[in-house]
Amino acid sequence: MSTSLPRIDAGRLWWRTMALAEIGALPAGGVNRQALSREDIAAWRRILIWAAEAGFSAACDEAGNLFLTLPGADRSAPPILSGSHLDSQPTGGKFDGAAGVMAALEAAITLAESGLPRHRDLVVVAWMNEEGSRFAPGMMGSEVFAGVRSLEDIRQVRDADGVSVGQALDTFLSAFPDVPCHAPGFPVGAFMELHIEQGPLLEAAETAIGIVTGIQGKYTYEVEILGAEDHAGTQHMAARRDALAAFTRMASQLYAEIGGHDDEVKFTIGRIEMAPNAPSVVPARVTFRIDLRHPGDDVLSALGARLTAICNANAAPCIVKVRQLVEAPPNTFAPTLRQLIGASAEARGYSAMPILSCAGHDARHLAKLCPTAMVFVPCRDGISHAENEFTSPEQLAQGTQVLADVLVKLVTHEGILP
Amino acid sequence: MSTSLPRIDAGRLWWRTMALAEIGALPAGGVNRQALSREDIAAWRRILIWAAEAGFSAACDEAGNLFLTLPGADRSAPPILSGSHLDSQPTGGKFDGAAGVMAALEAAITLAESGLPRHRDLVVVAWMNEEGSRFAPGMMGSEVFAGVRSLEDIRQVRDADGVSVGQALDTFLSAFPDVPCHAPGFPVGAFMELHIEQGPLLEAAETAIGIVTGIQGKYTYEVEILGAEDHAGTQHMAARRDALAAFTRMASQLYAEIGGHDDEVKFTIGRIEMAPNAPSVVPARVTFRIDLRHPGDDVLSALGARLTAICNANAAPCIVKVRQLVEAPPNTFAPTLRQLIGASAEARGYSAMPILSCAGHDARHLAKLCPTAMVFVPCRDGISHAENEFTSPEQLAQGTQVLADVLVKLVTHEGILP
Repeated sequence: MSTSLPRIDAGRLWWRTMALAEIGALPAGGVNRQALSREDIAAWRRILIWAAEAGFSAACDEAGNLFLTLPGADRSAPPILSGSHLDSQPTGGKFDGAAGVMAALEAAITLAESGLPRHRDLVVVAWMNEEGSRFAPGMMGSEVFAGVRSLEDIRQVRDADGVSVGQALDTFLSAFPDVPCHAPGFPVGAFMELHIEQGPLLEAAETAIGIVTGIQGKYTYEVEILGAEDHAGTQHMAARRDALAAFTRMASQLYAEIGGHDDEVKFTIGRIEMAPNAPSVVPARVTFRIDLRHPGDDVLSALGARLTAICNANAAPCIVKVRQLVEAPPNTFAPTLRQLIGASAEARGYSAMPILSCAGHDARHLAKLCPTAMVFVPCRDGISHAENEFTSPEQLAQGTQVLADVLVKLVTHEGILP
Repeated sequence: MSTSLPRIDAGRLWWRTMALAEIGALPAGGVNRQALSREDIAAWRRILIWAAEAGFSAACDEAGNLFLTLPGADRSAPPILSGSHLDSQPTGGKFDGAAGVMAALEAAITLAESGLPRHRDLVVVAWMNEEGSRFAPGMMGSEVFAGVRSLEDIRQVRDADGVSVGQALDTFLSAFPDVPCHAPGFPVGAFMELHIEQGPLLEAAETAIGIVTGIQGKYTYEVEILGAEDHAGTQHMAARRDALAAFTRMASQLYAEIGGHDDEVKFTIGRIEMAPNAPSVVPARVTFRIDLRHPGDDVLSALGARLTAICNANAAPCIVKVRQLVEAPPNTFAPTLRQLIGASAEARGYSAMPILSCAGHDARHLAKLCPTAMVFVPCRDGISHAENEFTSPEQLAQGTQVLADVLVKLVTHEGILP
């Protein structure tokens, strides 16, 4: 092992991750810890105790993001940020999000205990509502932090019970009167996020460390087809304006041309609603959602334009309206940071490979502000967003060690970042 | 006008039809009065008041069919039945079904008021759940009455909220403790049903009376496609078992080959359900309904077989199950009754023409029991199963007069029926 960097405490990391998973624990081993819930409050409390033990100072912002700071010599230099999210899907696992917060906390504690001189602050962060299962869509905390959405905007969003993010945030933050709260956003030197892969590639390649090259882009659309209601037994085929027949023509070409564009594209029609949806009535209206993803910016925007053209070309005699809901271009992560990840894995003797993130992460938004990168660790059978999501103690420790190595370098060596 | 038969009261018929349409009225002029709903109860109540005023006795059967009897001299002779249904599509019109019940009621009142001697009973009937929009498929009341389906069988069918026909029937019938309820089915002398055409032919030919020659055949199917749920952002296209993609392949060929078979075929996919129906999840299951109609028995059975083959051929890598729900071959109506309809129209000076019924009607099942026929009246632009469905007061009155003339002859003259 050709490195003199400090070693993380793999045992402490594992038991704390398991202790965190007790909050919102489900019978089959999973976690239900949705954003701004009582469980989310309990998770903050537990993290705050560990941070206080380590001597870190705690603060939060009005968007519900939590910051735990290990101070460096120059308090005015933009800090190095690392973390992920504490909220889960309704039947989520122990690692999606939580692993990234616990890894960053372990790295910061390791650095603090090492006594190495720090030229700037290291800040552990937990972003508010990454999952978007209670309040949709997710990534609210990092979006507000990065200036992608306004605080006022996310505060309007309501959950299924009619509770707004604004109300839930006020209640949530009032549970922490001793944690100073500031307006969202501050300059950041770099951001690093550890996450489970949520896919099968690292496991299949028997590789410990995924050096994430970027996050594939995601465009989503809502398409509405307007036809005319008619009696299924009487209206002649030639006189119909059948919205489902129009859908079939569109979808047929979309699956072939967009879905078959290359090996990297992901094209999904995941939701369809029809009216009146009665067995003996010619469909008058079909609404459907398209989810389109690709790592290439040019390809994604070309396919997006083509998709709209295909819908329009196949609509007649119906009318079609195509509305884009999400336009998230692909990310490419900072080469310097990817290099540091690779160097750490090599020095530690861990296998590593470049990997594209197919899922979205908070790092997507941080990448707009500062050099950003992600470390992936394998997860069993590629399963995530499910109770049986699993990453082994060793896999989590190796990823956390690499994260810690990079963070230590960034905080102790000046001049690595531009 | 070369007839001494009594005249119906066109004003009473129209205002009562409009009064009935207030029950379940929709903003754009239509009606939502689905089978066994609160609105259906309210419709029975209104009809029962009018029947009681006229001195008719009311009864029902365990299948939810309503019978209003004007007694004749020989109470043991099989009665003449006339009527249709009171339930509507979710966004249906004022006339589909209701016109036939109101016309039969008006005819019976006209006969009662005329004081003509009656040799047997005339019974006005409202069949339960003709539309099949809440509980599919429809025509449940007439099917049970005719012995085509068992009462136990229809009681198992559930609506989208999980309520069974059995539960809904029990609740419905308990609202009418004073209406005697008997087991379904009794001998019938003849059945006559007035209905709006639900097509454009009478209007185009400027013809008042459609002498219905028969009903085109109808086959319906439920098709279930089973694929696999996957993450829309991570699962490669080639590895997916996308149930909606399989649907698209099937539907594409079905519309082209079955829907395009000839000028007489009617092919409709009117209902589709998808699971989990979430925007970022590859669809795991699609269930859809096919409605196929044709006047030719041979063509219909050939297309039915072909349809199943097309579903099977396009399923892979998903699994498909095709289940036939309805197999109703084409009907031919009783020549004696068709002749009486034509004679009445001629005597009254109304234009008339033979016409094929493209829609299914309760008369299809009654035709198995007794001489049966239908009178069609025009509807504007051929529109039905829609809020703007319309038949004018004069068109409705002329059709009802012809119905009344035939019913009066059947009830006052012995020996017309074999």
